[in-house]
Amino acid sequence: MQSVRVALGERSYWIHAGPGAMAHPQHLRAAVAGTRAALVTNTVVGPLYADRLEQALQAQGTAVLRITLPDGEAHKTWDSLNTIYDAMLNARCDRSTTVIALGGGVVGDVAGFAAATYMRGAPLVQVPTTLLSQVDSSVGGKTAVNHPLGKNMIGAFYQPAAVLADTDTLRTLPARELSAGLAEVIKHGLLGDAGLFDWLEENMDRLLLREADALAHVIRRSAEIKAAIVALDERETGPRMLLNLGHTFGHAIEAGLGFGTWLHGEAVGTGLVLAAELSSRLGRIPPGNVERVRSLVRRAGLPTAAPPMSVDRYLEMMSVDKKARGGRLRFILLKSLGEAEIVTDVPATAVRESLLAGMGEAAAEALPSPPDRSATP
Amino acid sequence: MQSVRVALGERSYWIHAGPGAMAHPQHLRAAVAGTRAALVTNTVVGPLYADRLEQALQAQGTAVLRITLPDGEAHKTWDSLNTIYDAMLNARCDRSTTVIALGGGVVGDVAGFAAATYMRGAPLVQVPTTLLSQVDSSVGGKTAVNHPLGKNMIGAFYQPAAVLADTDTLRTLPARELSAGLAEVIKHGLLGDAGLFDWLEENMDRLLLREADALAHVIRRSAEIKAAIVALDERETGPRMLLNLGHTFGHAIEAGLGFGTWLHGEAVGTGLVLAAELSSRLGRIPPGNVERVRSLVRRAGLPTAAPPMSVDRYLEMMSVDKKARGGRLRFILLKSLGEAEIVTDVPATAVRESLLAGMGEAAAEALPSPPDRSATP
Repeated sequence: MQSVRVALGERSYWIHAGPGAMAHPQHLRAAVAGTRAALVTNTVVGPLYADRLEQALQAQGTAVLRITLPDGEAHKTWDSLNTIYDAMLNARCDRSTTVIALGGGVVGDVAGFAAATYMRGAPLVQVPTTLLSQVDSSVGGKTAVNHPLGKNMIGAFYQPAAVLADTDTLRTLPARELSAGLAEVIKHGLLGDAGLFDWLEENMDRLLLREADALAHVIRRSAEIKAAIVALDERETGPRMLLNLGHTFGHAIEAGLGFGTWLHGEAVGTGLVLAAELSSRLGRIPPGNVERVRSLVRRAGLPTAAPPMSVDRYLEMMSVDKKARGGRLRFILLKSLGEAEIVTDVPATAVRESLLAGMGEAAAEALPSPPDRSATP
Repeated sequence: MQSVRVALGERSYWIHAGPGAMAHPQHLRAAVAGTRAALVTNTVVGPLYADRLEQALQAQGTAVLRITLPDGEAHKTWDSLNTIYDAMLNARCDRSTTVIALGGGVVGDVAGFAAATYMRGAPLVQVPTTLLSQVDSSVGGKTAVNHPLGKNMIGAFYQPAAVLADTDTLRTLPARELSAGLAEVIKHGLLGDAGLFDWLEENMDRLLLREADALAHVIRRSAEIKAAIVALDERETGPRMLLNLGHTFGHAIEAGLGFGTWLHGEAVGTGLVLAAELSSRLGRIPPGNVERVRSLVRRAGLPTAAPPMSVDRYLEMMSVDKKARGGRLRFILLKSLGEAEIVTDVPATAVRESLLAGMGEAAAEALPSPPDRSATP
């Protein structure tokens, strides 16, 4: 078991990563202090892991109310929130009931926002079951639901009491989702740790083979890198924006194609290549570094070419992004393969050229959507 | 203009109270820093004051998006929240847009929760226009909407950037609502300032005559008393519960009669009498003090008799209150007329006796609902 402390004053918490983390008696007891828990999961993850977690909770004397949501981003909605509120209110849960999010990013975001807002805040424990949620979304306290006019538009910053990242759950993860998680790992290396980037170049195959040691390593390092940034800037007013590396382009891909066409991590993978391309065009990194980024993203099983859309469409999708303030676009760009910075007032021509270059490859490969991959290796 | 600083570290803010506070150039500029504001009001308050505030904002270069909600507690709902979200998203407001709540407690709670959750948190400025919201709900960062299964069940703790309590708005306040606000002022004296309680006994008539100096005094003292407690306990895990003095009984009255039958402040007024009664029965204060509380509440124009319901109904309504933890009821009781404390495991017989005594008067006066009073003095 590897453990990381997220230092946020009175809101500090532990992340424990490794096999069997969700049922680890000591960590579970520390995470769920009260006598009741609302276990929120979905129709895919629930049948696989909810019994195991529920038994561990009951063994320590915690009564469990199980709430099962439909699976998928399409259900990251008010309706799912209300399912949780209704169940907890009907069961007369008070604000000492711990909400446990067992699932991927969608369950974590919805259950997290429910915890943030149930009677103005109930304790929250994240039990992420995808690589993406283990290395990214379960760390840092972001919770949200979607709105018809935009993704993640309604939410809160709300820190969990603990994160239990059980690597056993990655055995059943579809290959495409494993790759999507690796996009955020690559991002963490690129923005904050040249050593992690180098390590990924050497060990990508071990990750794709799901070697437990390798997975535990990248979960721990990702959590450490992200946690250090979140500790500097809990509410995303400054340094935390570095975590958006690749996400401005990625958001435009997701929004432009329609959410769900590409996985978030797939869009981020291509977004990292585009951010590297833009960084190179502005003379911030040598062109050879763009190729290193592209190669690593491709080896992770991710698309590297921007889907063909008009450049104006891309720019439109970027300007409605909530990360744009006061109407100006902002980019996170690379200083090196291991350091990023926030850059404002980037010349529009460079952005257009980067998109065209990124799409040129797409047109050549005729890849409007990522290639199909087998569900499990 | 009287000003109070609420000390909450990086979330500290100023409360300014007095005539013309909402349009005070210096305070408004400090409160609304960005270039855009979403001015949330309702169909009653908007026509009276929104133009004045909007002109003051425009004069300082702040563009205003006005959002008008229907009036009343019945609209403290998801629907009203969505009205705000939709308008802000359609206008492409980003998270630097300040949400301004112009109205009473309902507008403050709904607009406050919208600000807390819009893109995970936009700046909030409270411009309370009722005495109740000026002395209570605008201070301390509680925001919420109602759920069909309970009042204020969904919400967040979210501090404003500033509170501008404009006493000019009290000139048009219906008398019944003025009295409702005075209930919370009496509460603040009872739980934290014997001097304020004595002052109220001497000056209640001046308040009912709406003398500006007297109103400004109780707004400032209420804010100071509440702010000091909130500073100790922002998220209501300890001392802040003292602010619930009278509210456990009051909640039962509101829920038992159906919300809206009595005003919140009216239920709190009677709740204070019942809390004093219970304190006396437990030997914590002399019986004569109960009479002083009852007399002051009555002089404020508030009901003092508990509406006739079965004691079991009262207890049921109290046990679903979110302030009950782990199934146990908890009471805030008086140590003196100026000091309160949290007491657990109060004997059920004493609670029943207090309710019967409180209702005995009700039966005598045949007062299931408070007497009608003229809309303005």
